[in-house]
Amino acid sequence: MTNGMEILLIEDNPEDVELTLRAFRKYHLANRIQVVRDGEEALECLFSTGRYAGSGECANTRLILLDLKLPKVDGLEILQKCKSDPRTRNIPVVVLTSSREEQDLIKSYNLGVNSYVVKPVDFPQFTDAVRQLGLYWMLLNQVPAEWRAEGGQGGGG
Amino acid sequence: MTNGMEILLIEDNPEDVELTLRAFRKYHLANRIQVVRDGEEALECLFSTGRYAGSGECANTRLILLDLKLPKVDGLEILQKCKSDPRTRNIPVVVLTSSREEQDLIKSYNLGVNSYVVKPVDFPQFTDAVRQLGLYWMLLNQVPAEWRAEGGQGGGG
Repeated sequence: MTNGMEILLIEDNPEDVELTLRAFRKYHLANRIQVVRDGEEALECLFSTGRYAGSGECANTRLILLDLKLPKVDGLEILQKCKSDPRTRNIPVVVLTSSREEQDLIKSYNLGVNSYVVKPVDFPQFTDAVRQLGLYWMLLNQVPAEWRAEGGQGGGG
Repeated sequence: MTNGMEILLIEDNPEDVELTLRAFRKYHLANRIQVVRDGEEALECLFSTGRYAGSGECANTRLILLDLKLPKVDGLEILQKCKSDPRTRNIPVVVLTSSREEQDLIKSYNLGVNSYVVKPVDFPQFTDAVRQLGLYWMLLNQVPAEWRAEGGQGGGG
């Protein structure tokens, strides 16, 4: 059991997982990523249920990279569950998808997504986008120290 | 009256305004910024009231850069009003502040901020942070086409 992974990558496409890890490796972010490949596993990890019961593997998550088209549980449903639960609602969620569909954009924003990024189809551009995204959210964006220290998600008013 | 400004910079410090504009100029983003210098004016612009009644100057806003310590109306109050109103709640808000106070971070996330960035004290680092932030939100992040086309803020479910 690992503990303390800060980035949760929810992605079923092995090629996109590999490209993301490769882009993050250059900036020493790759060892901070937990990868899950379907929506059910993502929810179990985030809420420490099922095969993740008591594991705490996602307790320190400070960034969720979320594909929309996922096996078992859809990305929009994961987003809805994360943003409506006090334990997870403050974790930044970036949708990282190949979908440019207007309805996916509108639904994601209505559900409270922090940011929505369309995967470039071209490999170098994909790598560059993921690199930019990783640096922005892991180095420039700040989250409360209590989350980092305790793996809690804030709370209170 | 201008129309179609896409970035609303809410900042009372003239030096920070100048540095931000300078960083954005390099990437041709500066002509897309509307600058307001206090919280009251920010709300009037966002909701087309007071001196902005009927102007539509903020109708196309797709990014709000929000300082927290502002004259007249505080940044957290602006954030609360933006995120609780259907006309504005989906516009990405990035807090850009010198405050590293835990309470400001927690309150901002609880109010639904999209991202929280602490202003680097050093000038070149400030410029670099603003540049990175501008490129991320204006080029990589996607918002629904209907906002860009009509200046509306989505809505529906």
